[in-house]
Amino acid sequence: MIAELVFVGTELLLGEILNTNAQYLSRQLAQLGVDVYHQVVVGDNAARLRAVLSQALSRSDLVIASGGLGPTDDDITREGAAEVTGRPLELDPQLLAQLEIWFARRGRRMAENNRRQCMVPRGARVLPNDRGTAPGLMIPADGDKVVILLPGPPGELRPMFEAHVAPYLAARSGGRPLRLVTRTLRFVGIGESALADGLRDLMATQTDPTIAPYAKVAEVHLRLATRAADEAEGYARIAPLEAEIRSRFGRFLYGSDEETLPQAVGRLLAERGMTLSTAESCTGGLVAKWITDVPGSSRY
Amino acid sequence: MIAELVFVGTELLLGEILNTNAQYLSRQLAQLGVDVYHQVVVGDNAARLRAVLSQALSRSDLVIASGGLGPTDDDITREGAAEVTGRPLELDPQLLAQLEIWFARRGRRMAENNRRQCMVPRGARVLPNDRGTAPGLMIPADGDKVVILLPGPPGELRPMFEAHVAPYLAARSGGRPLRLVTRTLRFVGIGESALADGLRDLMATQTDPTIAPYAKVAEVHLRLATRAADEAEGYARIAPLEAEIRSRFGRFLYGSDEETLPQAVGRLLAERGMTLSTAESCTGGLVAKWITDVPGSSRY
Repeated sequence: MIAELVFVGTELLLGEILNTNAQYLSRQLAQLGVDVYHQVVVGDNAARLRAVLSQALSRSDLVIASGGLGPTDDDITREGAAEVTGRPLELDPQLLAQLEIWFARRGRRMAENNRRQCMVPRGARVLPNDRGTAPGLMIPADGDKVVILLPGPPGELRPMFEAHVAPYLAARSGGRPLRLVTRTLRFVGIGESALADGLRDLMATQTDPTIAPYAKVAEVHLRLATRAADEAEGYARIAPLEAEIRSRFGRFLYGSDEETLPQAVGRLLAERGMTLSTAESCTGGLVAKWITDVPGSSRY
Repeated sequence: MIAELVFVGTELLLGEILNTNAQYLSRQLAQLGVDVYHQVVVGDNAARLRAVLSQALSRSDLVIASGGLGPTDDDITREGAAEVTGRPLELDPQLLAQLEIWFARRGRRMAENNRRQCMVPRGARVLPNDRGTAPGLMIPADGDKVVILLPGPPGELRPMFEAHVAPYLAARSGGRPLRLVTRTLRFVGIGESALADGLRDLMATQTDPTIAPYAKVAEVHLRLATRAADEAEGYARIAPLEAEIRSRFGRFLYGSDEETLPQAVGRLLAERGMTLSTAESCTGGLVAKWITDVPGSSRY
């Protein structure tokens, strides 16, 4: 299943907020074995939003759009998705009753414009929102495709994704999706190009697991990735490749997965009962900061 | 001038990294008076990258792409941009000489694949990179359009943007671009929909300055925005609208722009010589944390 993520909001195009939803949703979908080929950000503009949603539906099976579900006039995602899926919006009386209760509980009057949040494209499934007034929507589209609308605030989007979208996607893929299993090997003291040069034969022939090099500040990472039913199966497939890479470049490898260089240094110091002092010139205390950022660093 | 941002990298589609370049570039362009209508993220896939770049060139005047300029085979942005602009790649001997010096200074051998980083689309301008091996490129396209390629690591992208791209864009817009001037009004104790309802007449008629409401955790923000030659001109245009909104909803307004609620509470306490104790149940110390997160909070 190919997925596309659409983020709606002029505030994203102005750089006023950081798009943490993009990372969250991408990571969740990778875990569920769903491939994301495109992420698109578009502003609160009806024509451009419709064009982006149409294109997403034409090239992807699943479109997840977030943002623009609020009660105000610049919230246009509901209307745009209804239009591109060809489903008229209809007032959902049950949703209206729930929203009135939501406001009454908080001792507030429901504003007239909140009624817009009770408009549902015909045939869509409503995803309840316990944290806000915007319900999510799951809208069927041509040929088994689906458009899922989620609210923009991460505090509303995340619980809704976990409670309703993740189970739906897992069920759709037969309840046992292939998930992405990765191992990151972390190197220091060698450049990305030299490392890739020495692994050229492996990188040219390997298609599963894949090998992707990333240049980081003062480090290079290699990500080995495969898809498998579970972690054990995935790591078993990665192991021979990892062993071959370690045999070639093990002397530059300081750790794997989440362990950072300061953590690896700290672990070695603690294991050997050694302590560390720094006297820094150009780095002006940066090395000491990296070292002491690690919890438990007072041991060394 | 309409701009489009393209971010190249499978790691973004997998959610392995947070796209901070999107916020940085969007904010910089807003400051320079350049409108961004779309941001697109695409993986290290040649066909999809070409399609994304072609579409960007068809609907935008300026395309800024970042990432995928490294030395390894999965770095394909240079080739993709050369293809969609119809400019063949040619080895730049000067760039090659510089890169050889770059490696020699660091006592490293230059790998064969680094030569790829010296391939330049015919007629393109090279943007030097002091922090890494990937030069940026500024590639002319049909009808006065331009494609700018920047390296993905923020530590390389940001200085290159500030040194080379920002001055180019400022010069292109006559040296004195209209910049975005904004004022954010921060409200507490009122919902987004009630606030928007009470400002419906203003929001319906105002096109400049624009009014955009944002629901935040326990707060609502209104962003008033206009374009002006400088801040003084912009604030003068925003002032009457701000005064009208304050006269209607001033009792819910606690601060503006960057001042947070804990900062506003702290400022009022300090002004009045009052102190604050918290005894928290449901919030479990959260209020105390918010209060003490403000520098100087030991005064109250």
